Amino acid sequence: MNNVIETILNHRSLRHFEDKPLTNEQIRTIVSCAQSASTSSFIQAYSIIGVKDKEKKRKLAELAGNQEYVEKNGHFFVFCADLFRHTLIGEKEQKDVSLSIESTEKFMVSLIDASLAAQNAAIAAESLGLGICYIGGIRNQLEEVQKVLKTPERVIPLFGLAVGYPTKQTDRKPRLPFEHIYHEDEYEQDPEIYDRQLEEYDDLISNYYNQRTGGKRRDRWTEQMGKMLEKQNRMYMKEFIQKNKLDLR
Amino acid sequence: MNNVIETILNHRSLRHFEDKPLTNEQIRTIVSCAQSASTSSFIQAYSIIGVKDKEKKRKLAELAGNQEYVEKNGHFFVFCADLFRHTLIGEKEQKDVSLSIESTEKFMVSLIDASLAAQNAAIAAESLGLGICYIGGIRNQLEEVQKVLKTPERVIPLFGLAVGYPTKQTDRKPRLPFEHIYHEDEYEQDPEIYDRQLEEYDDLISNYYNQRTGGKRRDRWTEQMGKMLEKQNRMYMKEFIQKNKLDLR
Repeated sequence: MNNVIETILNHRSLRHFEDKPLTNEQIRTIVSCAQSASTSSFIQAYSIIGVKDKEKKRKLAELAGNQEYVEKNGHFFVFCADLFRHTLIGEKEQKDVSLSIESTEKFMVSLIDASLAAQNAAIAAESLGLGICYIGGIRNQLEEVQKVLKTPERVIPLFGLAVGYPTKQTDRKPRLPFEHIYHEDEYEQDPEIYDRQLEEYDDLISNYYNQRTGGKRRDRWTEQMGKMLEKQNRMYMKEFIQKNKLDLR
Repeated sequence: MNNVIETILNHRSLRHFEDKPLTNEQIRTIVSCAQSASTSSFIQAYSIIGVKDKEKKRKLAELAGNQEYVEKNGHFFVFCADLFRHTLIGEKEQKDVSLSIESTEKFMVSLIDASLAAQNAAIAAESLGLGICYIGGIRNQLEEVQKVLKTPERVIPLFGLAVGYPTKQTDRKPRLPFEHIYHEDEYEQDPEIYDRQLEEYDDLISNYYNQRTGGKRRDRWTEQMGKMLEKQNRMYMKEFIQKNKLDLR
């Protein structure tokens, strides 16, 4: 195993960081790595906002559901889908780009671009001995997040990435079985096989929680997922995106 | 610079591969790395289909716009947004999960999850001395792609990842200036600054093409983008996704 693969496999989300800011050089390295990711047809449809301002960080932590590590970390990055830049390009080049930019396809492209870039940033940070945690919680109240970050129309903050010097390690949570995630040639949808795989995984996860919590928690994965998905969460999203002139046509 | 960062910064999309298949061990390592990525609230809302069958690869190459490297490579992965699994979980756990699964928010989550996983796979492959190329072209005709891969409802093939032993190297394309992608504390939207950055970048890209093609190509980036975005591409996407019972509510 080479140490790139070792770094990747060693990933865990960390949530406790020293009060020690990243250097500008570290930030620049992490962003350069993000930019090095592939981008659909060279479109580069994302932006990254690095938040240093204490009051802004405090506000973002509150908006993300009082997640302390949004405030206390070495640096807080926000990855945004960005088609504002391409709107300006349309004006500059005198091309009517609006229908294209407002399409569901381009919205997907901007999400994929931003995510590929973010994962490069995450791996780069981890290779520097830093810990990371993705923060989807900023999508709880995007209108407020937009005010804090002053993003224009057609820029959608997608998630945060808290980075810092870890003070507390966590365990690596076991993932779904290889055979369940990976299909060969065709999608395997035999309900019996699928069910058996899920049951095996449920046992694994239940044991994992049991061991970690000394018997206090034993929830199965499907139980967790059922409970989570029963709740309707962030149902304002479509309206928000359309208000931002990405019409999901 | 450590060699994780070196691997990331050294990325370029490669499109010519030896006719030498990846070993099962390589495939398993790459998929394990993909699975090691963060996943929103542990939802794991993606699947990966590895295509070995020659006829399927030929068909996918054709559907992606006759891209030869979809057929000729060491392995062809297709990354899919997957909420089919969670539909089954709803049944198993007797929870009504449909409104949640059909939301724009969960569609975004599945795209982000799949993309984070894919980028881990890409970096892992590159660290093994393999070349990679993302294939967005499979989104040209997703209904046909679905037939080839036999994906059920609520599974959307997002992009391919061609992996293999490279026979031809390419240059690394310069990315947008750091200052243009990276904002501090707030999104910088002064049109003058933005414009100047884009002009500098246009010069850089124009020179890059000029040098690579011995003067045959000199297009600016904004020129490329304007032309690309003027065309309406894959405008069937919304309808396709909704037909697959992801309603983008």
